[in-house]
Amino acid sequence: MNGAESLVRTLTACGVEVCFANPGTSEMHLLAALDQGGGPRCVLGLFEGVVTGAADGYARMAGKPAATLLHLGPGLANGLANLHNARRARSPMVNIVGEHGTRHQGLESPLETDIEAVAAPFSDWVHSAATAAALGRDTANAIAAARSAPGRIATLIVPADTAWSEGSAPANGLPEVTAPAKVSDERLAVVADILRKGEPTLLFMTAAALSEQGLAAAGQIAATTGAVPLTQMSNRRIERGAGRVAVDRLRYPVDQALDQLAHFRHIVQVGTREPTAFFAYPEKPSLLAPEHAEAHLLARPRDDLVDALERLADMVGASGEAPQVTSFDPPPLPTGPLNGDKIAAALANALPEGGIVADESVSVGRNFFALTKNSRPHTWLQVTGGAIGCGLPLATGAATACPDRPVVCLEADGSAMYTLQALWTQARESLNVTTVILANRSYAILQDEMRNVGVETPGQIGRDMMTLDCPALGWVDLAKGMGVEAAATDDAQEFARLLAHGIATPGPYLIEALL
Amino acid sequence: MNGAESLVRTLTACGVEVCFANPGTSEMHLLAALDQGGGPRCVLGLFEGVVTGAADGYARMAGKPAATLLHLGPGLANGLANLHNARRARSPMVNIVGEHGTRHQGLESPLETDIEAVAAPFSDWVHSAATAAALGRDTANAIAAARSAPGRIATLIVPADTAWSEGSAPANGLPEVTAPAKVSDERLAVVADILRKGEPTLLFMTAAALSEQGLAAAGQIAATTGAVPLTQMSNRRIERGAGRVAVDRLRYPVDQALDQLAHFRHIVQVGTREPTAFFAYPEKPSLLAPEHAEAHLLARPRDDLVDALERLADMVGASGEAPQVTSFDPPPLPTGPLNGDKIAAALANALPEGGIVADESVSVGRNFFALTKNSRPHTWLQVTGGAIGCGLPLATGAATACPDRPVVCLEADGSAMYTLQALWTQARESLNVTTVILANRSYAILQDEMRNVGVETPGQIGRDMMTLDCPALGWVDLAKGMGVEAAATDDAQEFARLLAHGIATPGPYLIEALL
Repeated sequence: MNGAESLVRTLTACGVEVCFANPGTSEMHLLAALDQGGGPRCVLGLFEGVVTGAADGYARMAGKPAATLLHLGPGLANGLANLHNARRARSPMVNIVGEHGTRHQGLESPLETDIEAVAAPFSDWVHSAATAAALGRDTANAIAAARSAPGRIATLIVPADTAWSEGSAPANGLPEVTAPAKVSDERLAVVADILRKGEPTLLFMTAAALSEQGLAAAGQIAATTGAVPLTQMSNRRIERGAGRVAVDRLRYPVDQALDQLAHFRHIVQVGTREPTAFFAYPEKPSLLAPEHAEAHLLARPRDDLVDALERLADMVGASGEAPQVTSFDPPPLPTGPLNGDKIAAALANALPEGGIVADESVSVGRNFFALTKNSRPHTWLQVTGGAIGCGLPLATGAATACPDRPVVCLEADGSAMYTLQALWTQARESLNVTTVILANRSYAILQDEMRNVGVETPGQIGRDMMTLDCPALGWVDLAKGMGVEAAATDDAQEFARLLAHGIATPGPYLIEALL
Repeated sequence: MNGAESLVRTLTACGVEVCFANPGTSEMHLLAALDQGGGPRCVLGLFEGVVTGAADGYARMAGKPAATLLHLGPGLANGLANLHNARRARSPMVNIVGEHGTRHQGLESPLETDIEAVAAPFSDWVHSAATAAALGRDTANAIAAARSAPGRIATLIVPADTAWSEGSAPANGLPEVTAPAKVSDERLAVVADILRKGEPTLLFMTAAALSEQGLAAAGQIAATTGAVPLTQMSNRRIERGAGRVAVDRLRYPVDQALDQLAHFRHIVQVGTREPTAFFAYPEKPSLLAPEHAEAHLLARPRDDLVDALERLADMVGASGEAPQVTSFDPPPLPTGPLNGDKIAAALANALPEGGIVADESVSVGRNFFALTKNSRPHTWLQVTGGAIGCGLPLATGAATACPDRPVVCLEADGSAMYTLQALWTQARESLNVTTVILANRSYAILQDEMRNVGVETPGQIGRDMMTLDCPALGWVDLAKGMGVEAAATDDAQEFARLLAHGIATPGPYLIEALL
């Protein structure tokens, strides 16, 4: 058996079911091995940012890693921005990166790069396979690294000769995976004491704390102690809607975030760090907690957050409490000229039970979270690392993991352009993704930020760098060019109709929401 | 004056006239400074691979660096693949990468990355600005580094506070730039002796050796000594067509390349290294020269290649010789069903004097080079680093540098998808680029490579990973969505007509050549 075959068999043996791929010549033996059958399902992306972003979306919904198949240093490089987002989401992922054969390295052939150096800033684990014989074991180690708490990016570099050489064998099972750690009773007791004081206390949460179970425990604690749950600005996955404990998120504009936190005396970190601004601004703080607030670490990202919240609820006598949960009570269906709030209202009505929202709505979507609170139960995915171009791939991966759950992708037009190739994969795989392009034809967030640096009226260059209307992007044409049916509207009632149609119809659909 | 203003003024003072930009929040002060006027012309790209690829194309045609403006680590990451190509082209480039304000670093805010580590594998010079006061000098140093022989990638990281803080000043002129080195007489004499032996000798050339002047000298040497000029597989720029010395290029398929080189006894490196295969294959060599051939270094990449060739011509008594130059004698205009050779024939007829070809034709284009030899005088740009997604941005940058010279971009459909956003910039800037999409609806090169690894008939997964026909990409719609007029045809005569129309008409045009 050659190395490529042992790699593919090890993926399957260790539970990796999907491989998002954009292979090249140096990956031909891996492709040939996949082609023999019995390996993961292969999903082709026409750009590597689609591949890594889809693997992120898959991992968030499947709770386990997909593999990616990438071509040498430049192929990996094209996937890095969404690796960054995935790493911030603590999504498990196994990147298989082809490399030149060992004897071909050092010759400065056109594609030669230092792949380990390219991978390192965006990976938690990097290894270059040395021999075909060890490639099965290397693959198992990569998978174990990816699956270890809290979820890691593992990058395995595969020189072509380790793939094509004989004398290999699949790994003998998955090495030990580091499970989430249990928080100590002492740590719980410290936080329980804080909660019992009854002073204004924030539960600052992310990751598994935002699962239905985690939120329920947080809701019990809130009901008993008056503590207020709040999420990070961006989170890998939030369970929301009717029957769930609703939770607000930290605001992006610094002044609003400072207001949100101003009256808290204690900030309890549940998988989070201190509340931090997205960007630095002159004369505004980077750390958002008020000076009088004390920080308390309940659980690190790699700890078992749900267990910590449930035991904490128990310790403060809240575990019998019925948490306050959300009802199904969406805003009225919108009419008239379309705007951001009306998009949210239409979405709140249209989202089916089990729907998934991939949210890269950027500036238009600042109110989406509040306005969709009273929808049917659904799952919300955010761009965790701030690297734009995440939404369309995220939706693609989520739909791959959950073929029975309609996905709605809320996508800023500027951001959508970074990874628009994802639409083609959605068409090819007949994924039920309804993409809403929020077509304000600008980098609207930058227009806000320009005001933040004191420029009220930008000049010609400033305007040119922040507007996308010359020429206007035609998203119906772009979608059609990738095999995705699409429509455009500037009317709220028509938007609501198209959205319901897109969700109800199998396969992808795109709505250009003209704002 | 704040740091941003001194940076912008230094760019202008040191001759940087164009800035390809995809800015974000951390670059707002830089944008505000650009907006004050007097700085470089700003050209917006909707994806960073467009920005860096366009800067490469600009540098190849303008012979000096453009700046790029990129947003933090992920923005830089998206531009790395085309930085790789630019570095292999030895294109000078000054990347300005915004970074969080100094006090914002280390807080794990969403976009935090180690930008120096991201830049390092793809840059020749990396520096993080420490203070506003030094930012003018830092910028001048970056430009000097970029302009130093043979052309370098300089990446300057600008923390937001160094841009917004006062107390800065533009640099006091450009620091010393390392000029190309003169080759010693001793080295020339060694090669001259080889040439005088009259044994089969190859002049293996790239870079400035492929300028009109370099080729003329090589042609003189060839006429006198019988040496054969040959280029690397991929070169930054070749002057071709009527009145120039024609030169073949090293073939991509290993067996063909071995045949090409088999009878040479001496291989003289003119800015090149040993002839090397693109990829490694089992049981095929990576180094392509026959065992009996001796390698001789005439000039390193950082040497003055034209001077070396001219002095060598003089030394072998060839400088009075009239080199054999090409005549204008294109193949007949094609008719009937379109194929690769007919595309080349149409191009050979349509290319105007001074036309520029950006070539990312990959597998379809293997004969393009030979079939366009007898065109009017023109310039040919290749993908130097093998990272696909270079062609459309390269054409965009070349057209920005040379508004009076029509650009034809020969672009494989698979490769085009990596940076299709370049079409929007072409429309916005009204660049005269005629893009020919070679729509074979497959990664055809991989189908060849699959045969190279012994798989004659791929299975379902293999086919799925190498075909792009389900759904077919609709390039006319994709172009229209980005404001570029387009047409599709599978007829050679109609193709020739559309190509001539595209070249003759100002602004961008796209032809989907259905193969």
